[in-house]
Amino acid sequence: MTRNEQDYIRIPIDRVKTITSRLLQTHNVRPADADVVAEVLTAADIRGVESHGIGRLIPYYLTGLELGHIKAQPEVSTAREMGSMFVVDADNGLGHIACHAAMKKAIALAQTHGIGMGGVRGSNHFGIAGYYAMMALEENMIGLCLCNSTPLVLPTYSRKPVLGTNPIAFAAPAGKHQPFVLDMATSVVPIGKVEVHRRWEVKVPPQWGADHMGRPVDDPQEILDGGGLFPLGGPAETSGYKGYGLAAVVDILSGVLTGASFLTGVSRGGAAQRSQVGHFVAALKIDGFIDPEAFAQRMDDFIDELKEAPLAEGSDRVFVAGEKEFWHTEESMRDGVPVHKKVWSDITDAAKKMGIEVS
Amino acid sequence: MTRNEQDYIRIPIDRVKTITSRLLQTHNVRPADADVVAEVLTAADIRGVESHGIGRLIPYYLTGLELGHIKAQPEVSTAREMGSMFVVDADNGLGHIACHAAMKKAIALAQTHGIGMGGVRGSNHFGIAGYYAMMALEENMIGLCLCNSTPLVLPTYSRKPVLGTNPIAFAAPAGKHQPFVLDMATSVVPIGKVEVHRRWEVKVPPQWGADHMGRPVDDPQEILDGGGLFPLGGPAETSGYKGYGLAAVVDILSGVLTGASFLTGVSRGGAAQRSQVGHFVAALKIDGFIDPEAFAQRMDDFIDELKEAPLAEGSDRVFVAGEKEFWHTEESMRDGVPVHKKVWSDITDAAKKMGIEVS
Repeated sequence: MTRNEQDYIRIPIDRVKTITSRLLQTHNVRPADADVVAEVLTAADIRGVESHGIGRLIPYYLTGLELGHIKAQPEVSTAREMGSMFVVDADNGLGHIACHAAMKKAIALAQTHGIGMGGVRGSNHFGIAGYYAMMALEENMIGLCLCNSTPLVLPTYSRKPVLGTNPIAFAAPAGKHQPFVLDMATSVVPIGKVEVHRRWEVKVPPQWGADHMGRPVDDPQEILDGGGLFPLGGPAETSGYKGYGLAAVVDILSGVLTGASFLTGVSRGGAAQRSQVGHFVAALKIDGFIDPEAFAQRMDDFIDELKEAPLAEGSDRVFVAGEKEFWHTEESMRDGVPVHKKVWSDITDAAKKMGIEVS
Repeated sequence: MTRNEQDYIRIPIDRVKTITSRLLQTHNVRPADADVVAEVLTAADIRGVESHGIGRLIPYYLTGLELGHIKAQPEVSTAREMGSMFVVDADNGLGHIACHAAMKKAIALAQTHGIGMGGVRGSNHFGIAGYYAMMALEENMIGLCLCNSTPLVLPTYSRKPVLGTNPIAFAAPAGKHQPFVLDMATSVVPIGKVEVHRRWEVKVPPQWGADHMGRPVDDPQEILDGGGLFPLGGPAETSGYKGYGLAAVVDILSGVLTGASFLTGVSRGGAAQRSQVGHFVAALKIDGFIDPEAFAQRMDDFIDELKEAPLAEGSDRVFVAGEKEFWHTEESMRDGVPVHKKVWSDITDAAKKMGIEVS
């Protein structure tokens, strides 16, 4: 599952952002909003999360805008507010715009109240959840971001995917170390990983998913043909009901509580139709709990102990959540963002067609 | 793994609580505190979570009090407070006392601010995390409770257990349905389940744990002999690094952020030594986000869709988090709490010795 470097080209970060933003602007997205979306999409590629990066720009976002499933100039508004809690209505715009606004609001409320917590309803796919959680780090806060998504995941004992891969992102600052950044789907694997195995004609572990009758299978084709992904933990025997429970918690907070759609009410979105997903964000000020300097020191000790834990046989190192993504970030800053050549030629072709300067 | 009914006796709920509270009082626990501890311990047995119930009273709590590892009359105090955030110092008392006080405080703050969120430090084992999350339900709020615990769980790629089974408990009210109550350890299984398999000389799935070299094994003895439990997800191939990440989040919020111990700084506690665990609680007022009646209706729709999802081959029904525990509760209220005969005779013997009326 490693990238074949030959198929990739490295592009300076700013160039990726600029061309992405300008392409969005040709689809009537306001310049400031287009910059936000470009920033979030590029951040995914910078961090090595190609599946959520600019590869989605044309097939998902621009097509969705062209077909009118996503509104180019949404009126993002605060639908409800009470103390440090609020709900933002995304007005069916790009999810990045509304969730970025919501996280900024949560951070501002946390500056005053210690906590800011909000939901977003009527939204669309927003890229990587980790981006929004990490916004809190800039203010030395702890950040949380959840999102519901297209039904692909089986509740334990069911054969119908009614839950999304509903990600949980959590970011906490450290001292000398990079921040702790967890950004995970609540399914065992994303659907894309099953698709890659099908393409390669390679079997998958039977904990990844089930066929159309809900039976664990090792043939990726059977998972994709009317089957579904298992929640984190796999089938019941290995406690998949815990992953099912977590996916449900994410849906309750992002969907049920915010007024967004939930379960099968969430649609595929993008090029297909309106998705109506919901998001949930929170920012916590550390000194509500502990002196921030003490926290940074304790986080460093925490990370040190994990990194120095004795290795299992055949293993090279113990990772801390977010560590690999920071290496990718350093590499992208030094050498440019890795973009699949086909993705980049599609983007530059589209840009040229719209009269955007690409070099 | 089902209970052998012959080995159990059913005792009226009030009788279990009374005798538990009185036994704690003979160990110098204040009457009001003893009632809280008895309430939480009995709640575990009522809900069918025998491992966290009154079976622990003598070997863990009373012995810990006798040996002075746990303080009988702690001065639970607010160590820090800012807006709707706070930290409680448990003063090395029984964890139930401090966490009950913390959740009450979180709920009171949520009445005013919409959110209440707090940590507990210098604490001890507190029973089931779900109890505290469920306290929020009485005020029609959403409740959250986390706790770190004795290191038993392996970070992915390590052979040393440095993380606890660190539970996540989340409770949300519904309308016609029972509330959604998730109360799960972030390991695949609790250590007790491995011990039971060893006793029965039955193999375990290789996703449950590893031997002393960090190799997945199916022999429960090898997991217990210097090995460790896998985090939710199992080994790396089935995404155990996600469970590892979640266990770390629980430790960051319960331990690092509150000023409690974390990772291997957490000790076994109880009869062995001081444990110094930390807890994290939150209460959210629903109308900060949505009209509470609309939320109840949406939760009912959410639960209906899950319960009515088509069944996998060979399955009888789809459960919703907390559903089985509510059945146990109904049964316990009707027929009495199921208590293992040996546990009950130990408790009544101890009570008689202390001059407590037991019948």
